[in-house]
Amino acid sequence: MSIITLTTDFGTGSPYVAALKGVILSINPAATIVDLTHAVPAQDIREGAMVLDEVADRFPEGTIHVVVIDPGVGTDRAIVYARIGRQQFIAPDNGVLSRVLARTMALEVIRLENPAYWLDQISTTFHGRDIMAPVAAHLSLGVDPRELGPVHVPLGQLEWPRPIRQHDRVEGTVLKIDSFGNLITNIDAQTLLGRPMDGRACIVCNIYETWGIYQNYAEQPRGTLIALIGSGGCLELAIVGESAAERLGIEPGEPVVVAWE
Amino acid sequence: MSIITLTTDFGTGSPYVAALKGVILSINPAATIVDLTHAVPAQDIREGAMVLDEVADRFPEGTIHVVVIDPGVGTDRAIVYARIGRQQFIAPDNGVLSRVLARTMALEVIRLENPAYWLDQISTTFHGRDIMAPVAAHLSLGVDPRELGPVHVPLGQLEWPRPIRQHDRVEGTVLKIDSFGNLITNIDAQTLLGRPMDGRACIVCNIYETWGIYQNYAEQPRGTLIALIGSGGCLELAIVGESAAERLGIEPGEPVVVAWE
Amino acid sequence: MSIITLTTDFGTGSPYVAALKGVILSINPAATIVDLTHAVPAQDIREGAMVLDEVADRFPEGTIHVVVIDPGVGTDRAIVYARIGRQQFIAPDNGVLSRVLARTMALEVIRLENPAYWLDQISTTFHGRDIMAPVAAHLSLGVDPRELGPVHVPLGQLEWPRPIRQHDRVEGTVLKIDSFGNLITNIDAQTLLGRPMDGRACIVCNIYETWGIYQNYAEQPRGTLIALIGSGGCLELAIVGESAAERLGIEPGEPVVVAWE
Repeated sequence: MSIITLTTDFGTGSPYVAALKGVILSINPAATIVDLTHAVPAQDIREGAMVLDEVADRFPEGTIHVVVIDPGVGTDRAIVYARIGRQQFIAPDNGVLSRVLARTMALEVIRLENPAYWLDQISTTFHGRDIMAPVAAHLSLGVDPRELGPVHVPLGQLEWPRPIRQHDRVEGTVLKIDSFGNLITNIDAQTLLGRPMDGRACIVCNIYETWGIYQNYAEQPRGTLIALIGSGGCLELAIVGESAAERLGIEPGEPVVVAWE
Repeated sequence: MSIITLTTDFGTGSPYVAALKGVILSINPAATIVDLTHAVPAQDIREGAMVLDEVADRFPEGTIHVVVIDPGVGTDRAIVYARIGRQQFIAPDNGVLSRVLARTMALEVIRLENPAYWLDQISTTFHGRDIMAPVAAHLSLGVDPRELGPVHVPLGQLEWPRPIRQHDRVEGTVLKIDSFGNLITNIDAQTLLGRPMDGRACIVCNIYETWGIYQNYAEQPRGTLIALIGSGGCLELAIVGESAAERLGIEPGEPVVVAWE
Repeated sequence: MSIITLTTDFGTGSPYVAALKGVILSINPAATIVDLTHAVPAQDIREGAMVLDEVADRFPEGTIHVVVIDPGVGTDRAIVYARIGRQQFIAPDNGVLSRVLARTMALEVIRLENPAYWLDQISTTFHGRDIMAPVAAHLSLGVDPRELGPVHVPLGQLEWPRPIRQHDRVEGTVLKIDSFGNLITNIDAQTLLGRPMDGRACIVCNIYETWGIYQNYAEQPRGTLIALIGSGGCLELAIVGESAAERLGIEPGEPVVVAWE
């Protein structure tokens, strides 16, 4: 099996994505290449980190995830190979792996320094094409990661807000907006464990509030603001049949409180 | 052969699409996965139904089409397997298959109820990932559809406006706008059979009119409003080299009349 | 190996793209299909020509590039097969291949006239689906290009502005905006050969100027306008961490001058 996924901030439809695929297929024509997403906003390492956390582990063991969100391209930031849990990653060491690392320890981290597995000509502005893509292709052919360079220690971290659990409330934050406009928070089901999920739970975000944590989007009439545990396992706020982000004008970073009387 | 297509309303570039692919490849790493489209507007079952009708039958016999346009996720709406003509579908029974069913009878319909072919953990909000994707992957490995659940009868229908043929006119409706901004109507070539297609035919939509039904977009100068039979076999209105929808401000639902003196 | 890429102006997410894939897979279910891009603006042959020039040669030798940017569909414009360098192309003879042809001579050009390799039913408005896609699929199965039709001579050309090199300055043009908003010019590294790249070089575009040609985007603080040689080998203007096109309001066609005192 040789599955390689691509996560970039190039924009969906960018021909730069095709350049990565051309390079990979030139080295391993049998590789299965999957777009994880290319819609990460330009240079938005945090968004990239969240996407990887949500989706990477759905892929088969040994999948190689190439992550080209790389505002520091051409500087001395490291590009690393990292085996984390069942998955493999090739990414700049800039924090984009910090959320997958928060869940599972890296088993092996290598700094890409061996140009034998790169393209012959290396540009200063597109290491995704010239270094990361060819390394991924060689790995998919069975190259031992230890041939790619020396062991690497510092894995860049980003600060992620954690939910605060108090006796009568949980305080969290809107982490992201999904493509339906739902507000995904950092309050995971674990943090809510043992608390009532029925109408006694009051969820407040900005000037809006709603009671009870639902199971799905269809339980209330269209246009109703509801809270539920989303498919990623975290509390989210949604408006049935509409975009909550647009209707309420809420952006990532907005505080969310779940309170019980 | 094991081709699986994906049609969703997740938005092009959504990482939720990659989650479907990861699940499928975890079960059948050799599956060929094709994006049919992810640009269906959120929860727009009608648009999904039209897309399937236009494109699904272009795929090889036995292709498995997974359709995740599912506003009723988590309610008791059924998810079904349906063999329709040469194609196979996995979709909610909410009308999204109603246009392909209008052309060809379903040969076999099964309600997905056997969790042996689902993921171990089923969320309440993402049955595409947890039920439909794994079932499609198992089917592509040769599982007999009858193992997926019991025979299912009701296949949700939607009302579709039909063109009205009178002695001196045909009345129809703009069904959709394509990506070039052409206005695709529900008036198929069949309905126009035996009527003059030359300058005697007057096509009226809103306050605009044009004469004659052309063969292609290039016969008239840029900026001209023309009518022609499009690649899907239906009458469409186009402005040469521009977006008719934008220029004329027309939306789906607008009446279109073809009249002969 | 049977890799087929698709370049169209259908819009990312268009189901018409899936129609091409369905047709190809119906003929060669083992084909590897890669989206080069579908985000070329409608009927923008020049943009298509630039994309092919940037990306096509990254693919393995013998890759078949299908290019459906075809405003003349249904007229008597030719559709051709062309072997250019290591790559193969199927495209309308409308200039979309003019940039790859400026670099490398076509080794073999055939006009597609043999309907034995087309779909049975040919629409007048979608030759990408009915002629180009099936021909590509047959080629990928080993059909000899000479069976597709007669030798074809005229390959449509477009005028491309060339940089002008004078003793104390080079004059060029913004050719395109990339997905990060960088302004890509037609001034290639070759044209700058032997000239100082340090602070003595003054780059002027509209009312904006900057000094020195950098190696990458990260050398200056966020918000700084810089010039650098991009990954395609041409001079580009960028604003660190932002979209230069948006911030400066510059569009393709804008003159760019590099001057030395």
